[in-house]
Amino acid sequence: MAGSTWGHLFRVTTAGESHGPGYVAIVDGVPAGLALSEADLQPDLDRRRPGQSKIVSQRQEADSAEILSGVFEGMTTGTPIAILIRNQDQRSTDYSDIKEKYRPGHADFTFDQKFGRRDWRGGGRSSARETSVRVAAGAIAKKLLAERWGVGIVGYVLQVGDISAGVPDPSAVTLEQVEATPVRCPDPSTAARMIELIEQVRGERDSIGGVAELCATGVPAGWGEPVFDKLKADLGKAMLSLPAVLGFEYGAGFGVATMRGSANNDALVCEDGEVRTRTNRHGGMLGGISSGMPIVMRCAVKPTSSLPQPQETVTTQGEATTIETKGRHDPCLLPRFVPMAEAMLALVLADHALRQEAR
Amino acid sequence: MAGSTWGHLFRVTTAGESHGPGYVAIVDGVPAGLALSEADLQPDLDRRRPGQSKIVSQRQEADSAEILSGVFEGMTTGTPIAILIRNQDQRSTDYSDIKEKYRPGHADFTFDQKFGRRDWRGGGRSSARETSVRVAAGAIAKKLLAERWGVGIVGYVLQVGDISAGVPDPSAVTLEQVEATPVRCPDPSTAARMIELIEQVRGERDSIGGVAELCATGVPAGWGEPVFDKLKADLGKAMLSLPAVLGFEYGAGFGVATMRGSANNDALVCEDGEVRTRTNRHGGMLGGISSGMPIVMRCAVKPTSSLPQPQETVTTQGEATTIETKGRHDPCLLPRFVPMAEAMLALVLADHALRQEAR
Amino acid sequence: MAGSTWGHLFRVTTAGESHGPGYVAIVDGVPAGLALSEADLQPDLDRRRPGQSKIVSQRQEADSAEILSGVFEGMTTGTPIAILIRNQDQRSTDYSDIKEKYRPGHADFTFDQKFGRRDWRGGGRSSARETSVRVAAGAIAKKLLAERWGVGIVGYVLQVGDISAGVPDPSAVTLEQVEATPVRCPDPSTAARMIELIEQVRGERDSIGGVAELCATGVPAGWGEPVFDKLKADLGKAMLSLPAVLGFEYGAGFGVATMRGSANNDALVCEDGEVRTRTNRHGGMLGGISSGMPIVMRCAVKPTSSLPQPQETVTTQGEATTIETKGRHDPCLLPRFVPMAEAMLALVLADHALRQEAR
Amino acid sequence: MAGSTWGHLFRVTTAGESHGPGYVAIVDGVPAGLALSEADLQPDLDRRRPGQSKIVSQRQEADSAEILSGVFEGMTTGTPIAILIRNQDQRSTDYSDIKEKYRPGHADFTFDQKFGRRDWRGGGRSSARETSVRVAAGAIAKKLLAERWGVGIVGYVLQVGDISAGVPDPSAVTLEQVEATPVRCPDPSTAARMIELIEQVRGERDSIGGVAELCATGVPAGWGEPVFDKLKADLGKAMLSLPAVLGFEYGAGFGVATMRGSANNDALVCEDGEVRTRTNRHGGMLGGISSGMPIVMRCAVKPTSSLPQPQETVTTQGEATTIETKGRHDPCLLPRFVPMAEAMLALVLADHALRQEAR
Repeated sequence: MAGSTWGHLFRVTTAGESHGPGYVAIVDGVPAGLALSEADLQPDLDRRRPGQSKIVSQRQEADSAEILSGVFEGMTTGTPIAILIRNQDQRSTDYSDIKEKYRPGHADFTFDQKFGRRDWRGGGRSSARETSVRVAAGAIAKKLLAERWGVGIVGYVLQVGDISAGVPDPSAVTLEQVEATPVRCPDPSTAARMIELIEQVRGERDSIGGVAELCATGVPAGWGEPVFDKLKADLGKAMLSLPAVLGFEYGAGFGVATMRGSANNDALVCEDGEVRTRTNRHGGMLGGISSGMPIVMRCAVKPTSSLPQPQETVTTQGEATTIETKGRHDPCLLPRFVPMAEAMLALVLADHALRQEAR
Repeated sequence: MAGSTWGHLFRVTTAGESHGPGYVAIVDGVPAGLALSEADLQPDLDRRRPGQSKIVSQRQEADSAEILSGVFEGMTTGTPIAILIRNQDQRSTDYSDIKEKYRPGHADFTFDQKFGRRDWRGGGRSSARETSVRVAAGAIAKKLLAERWGVGIVGYVLQVGDISAGVPDPSAVTLEQVEATPVRCPDPSTAARMIELIEQVRGERDSIGGVAELCATGVPAGWGEPVFDKLKADLGKAMLSLPAVLGFEYGAGFGVATMRGSANNDALVCEDGEVRTRTNRHGGMLGGISSGMPIVMRCAVKPTSSLPQPQETVTTQGEATTIETKGRHDPCLLPRFVPMAEAMLALVLADHALRQEAR
Repeated sequence: MAGSTWGHLFRVTTAGESHGPGYVAIVDGVPAGLALSEADLQPDLDRRRPGQSKIVSQRQEADSAEILSGVFEGMTTGTPIAILIRNQDQRSTDYSDIKEKYRPGHADFTFDQKFGRRDWRGGGRSSARETSVRVAAGAIAKKLLAERWGVGIVGYVLQVGDISAGVPDPSAVTLEQVEATPVRCPDPSTAARMIELIEQVRGERDSIGGVAELCATGVPAGWGEPVFDKLKADLGKAMLSLPAVLGFEYGAGFGVATMRGSANNDALVCEDGEVRTRTNRHGGMLGGISSGMPIVMRCAVKPTSSLPQPQETVTTQGEATTIETKGRHDPCLLPRFVPMAEAMLALVLADHALRQEAR
Repeated sequence: MAGSTWGHLFRVTTAGESHGPGYVAIVDGVPAGLALSEADLQPDLDRRRPGQSKIVSQRQEADSAEILSGVFEGMTTGTPIAILIRNQDQRSTDYSDIKEKYRPGHADFTFDQKFGRRDWRGGGRSSARETSVRVAAGAIAKKLLAERWGVGIVGYVLQVGDISAGVPDPSAVTLEQVEATPVRCPDPSTAARMIELIEQVRGERDSIGGVAELCATGVPAGWGEPVFDKLKADLGKAMLSLPAVLGFEYGAGFGVATMRGSANNDALVCEDGEVRTRTNRHGGMLGGISSGMPIVMRCAVKPTSSLPQPQETVTTQGEATTIETKGRHDPCLLPRFVPMAEAMLALVLADHALRQEAR
């Protein structure tokens, strides 16, 4: 119960710190007979890794994954798949300052309070670099979902600061549209303005927040459990388990607060023999169980806490001081957040898919 | 993994349907030596039950809890506490219409897809009545948290439709302020306008959504686990496991999307030998671990789906029809949502408190 | 993790003490569509209950089960099934002596050490009476296993003291043979001698131990997980979770210690297109996974610890004293142990059956 | 729930196959502040590895462990510890014969039935080589138990074939006595006879079974949970999760079958202000909770199934054939079983120790 394991039947356990030897994930419960190799993991790892474009952190990490088990003759065997990603560009000298000072917005202080000590070389266990192995595990889940159930997953940046994209139909967004620009917003003109804002913010030695949207298509009706393990609840937990996420909503989200029931309810209709809803304000989940409609959700991501400008804080001894981050940080987390969130979405769906199989 | 259990060390399992004999919760992991009787459970059950005021459902349920185990000579023994609440005012005739039709916004269709059958007398397992035993379990968690760690929990209605209360300091809100009006908004003048709106909406045979805010004070720094079981993640899951919740945020929430890092970071300061933050945009959690500051979160709750006006839907055979709810439903879920959400908040904190004890 | 829950997908949580209001089990994960009523639970409850014959405890308990949820129109709905059994013949005055003295062989001392307090009216949570709701849950598992996979389960008494039955083929033993005598030994002449011994032992104000054997037929090859959750491991845990069990073995069991590999290995053969083994020293499990052969296991059960003769012990203050049990206890636990062990066997198999479905 | 994870609070997840790149364990829940390095893991790995003496398998594996996370500046940080052991002497050509034939006594057939495929290079996931990372994880548990609670763990070979050692006081056996001979029997003269028997059996191209005994001293009263997670139950599961174990008993074990209660009960006495029992037929556990007396248990281990002589079996197509193992196997598993069993004992105790901390 120490919190490094996700899922019940499709189950991922991770280990690793940002400046230690590397990261490991063990993915247990993957059904036998899925074609799999390291090449299936690399594309999403490349989308997540630093140094991929000018608007993200310039730390250089190949994030090259090695599969250590669970695959034989190119196919999964049904036994746990261990994935190893070694750290390369650690430069822990960049971080020696933070040994004695608590960085605002980071987990330095809370880790010290929790454990009585912490790996002060960077974020240690709380670093977003931990999501690298989640992304690798998520790539397996994505492939399983696509091949066995025809489920498709796509995420994208909906908002950066005050700049919002209009995405009338999330289920129509393609990976190609998302990957067309480094900011991962499928609307090209909005993307350009977002990139401009990010570069401006970086020039001002600051950072900026935003919102990502995710959509899963092809999810059959019936996934999710009635009470505590509602699909919406596990999706919310999954997204909030990612660093920097302060809000989660699905379907109409916070917009429901001002709505009347008569306007909010999605009418049920029958088309081509299939029951569906005319609109999708319920975001593809009713009673916490998938309805067969696209699952749509959004995450609010805070601006990067590490800043190359002085910030007020205290030393570990409680003395007032300032800290200025000298590391290589993202001026906006959103572009690299997209593959992380997609991975968590895939992990949740794969787990619930198998849970439904056991019914 | 069938989804009826919450928590790892402070662990609640529930059973029951809205129109069956009753509900049961088994609360396992409560430490020995806590003074406890049914009288400790009843106040929150009374806050949750229907029929408590004019602005909620008029179904009559005493929601009287019987403790069947785990308490001896007025003290918990450390063994599981079973709680039984029998249903009384079931009137299942009210619901016979929904046997053949899917109610919009409800789980009727998704349950049929998931299980191939459903208890069509009301919401069955998906009924919000299931939260009665969660509230009873939460009352135990609240008492444990208060006595052992000095943690206080309070929830209230922040918004109904377009009417929002200004609550400058969530940690200063008291239970008495909340309970002063049936709408559970601590600001009396806003409360009056909310009640007026709810009565108007009911008169129009409609329903309205809203937002609830919750605050936990006295939580020591160090609760929550670094990766998947972040405190924010478990809180998000807990809130989203409640019926009708479509959004969750904590601290600055979705507001972070438009913020700069330099404005969003909470400066660390030292006061009276204690490290704290000058502001609380982080909502009391950093890296998913409690910081010692008040934990503040908000939930978006949709308008009641059951409406006493015709709504477009289909029969279980897929034929177009309309349905008009004749049962006794809440025109606004928020007032009764408050004790449900407080209970879930308490369950999460009690579980993480014990997890931290094991460290 | 407080230890009152069994299983992952077919999951049972129990609560209750021997002299409290009663016992509850919540059985979560039962697939929808199984015909079920209280009448399905009662036969095994009757086999377990005290007072059923002259050679067991004379405490009078009807052990009448009420199903509170999860069944609608005579069929399981897929939601958790809560079962309530109220205590009746509590006579806690019988037990007041043990408030101040630790009974040898019981959990009185260890509960005090663990919890700092205990329910001293009888065994409290450690009473074998807790198995009543396990037996009720097991009856559901048995029915599911029989209907969906054709699995049959039978247990019987193999040995009482020095008297052993010869049972050449465990898979041929029938429930009728077992129930033909109150001692539940399928060999009538051995049964008669066992009963005689038990009555003699009771006359001498003493108790006697024994061995029970269990067999599951019809289990398909492939149930059980490779590493920690081997089927043999979960079966061993299940049996050892029952009171008074000090030993567990399957197949050739402790007999393997003196065997050569060439003699112990079961040759694989093909009969009627099915791979099977010529002999079954492996007890139906290879690598912890079912082989398709009958699963055969044995449990060693100690003589009842409560004795109507003075035994040396200490008071809760550590002073030397003696204690003589005045309650109504079984001179031999084995006859009533059989349905308890069958129930646990069924719970393990039902859980692993569903786990295999999710593969 | 795919079975590769052990424990709740001290939690181990393993991955790896005998002829893949290597093995990984993630050990989550280790408290912060324990001094730890690879040097702490190696001694037990050396006791487990093949090639350590003439009487075990001659496969050459250094079993050198690399710690990838969770340790900083020589101390555990409280975050998960990943351990990597790469395979070296794989020689999978030795095993190509078993691709087409099922080895008697092995999991080849059951894996094919479960997964529809298997890694046929050796035992794959079912190989006892998987215990290497369990032993590494167990070494961490042993160190934690010793430093924090003063718990000592020792295992040894009690019986090989018909040769049994007399060990009057298990709690007095030392690691030095055990390691004095390659057979790990603490009685030197019996050890010599065991070695002679093992060499004779190997000369006859056969194998032989045996019994190992384990003892844990210093365990305080109060570890273990009342119902399903009794300490005896988790210990039984732990031992039965090891390959080749067909029986488990603790304390008087199967000997209780022929005992009277008056002779079996251990009298409670008070010595130096401590309540203890005069004898230890209860093996240190009452009601499944530790009593403060030494925990004593035994495991029956079957003779190695792989034999360098022809054995009757079938091909994967069901045709009758014979198979003769050409690999390098142990003529008796017991000497290398001892560190595996000690590791599992340590994992169980560490987990229950932390669970008790959370009470």
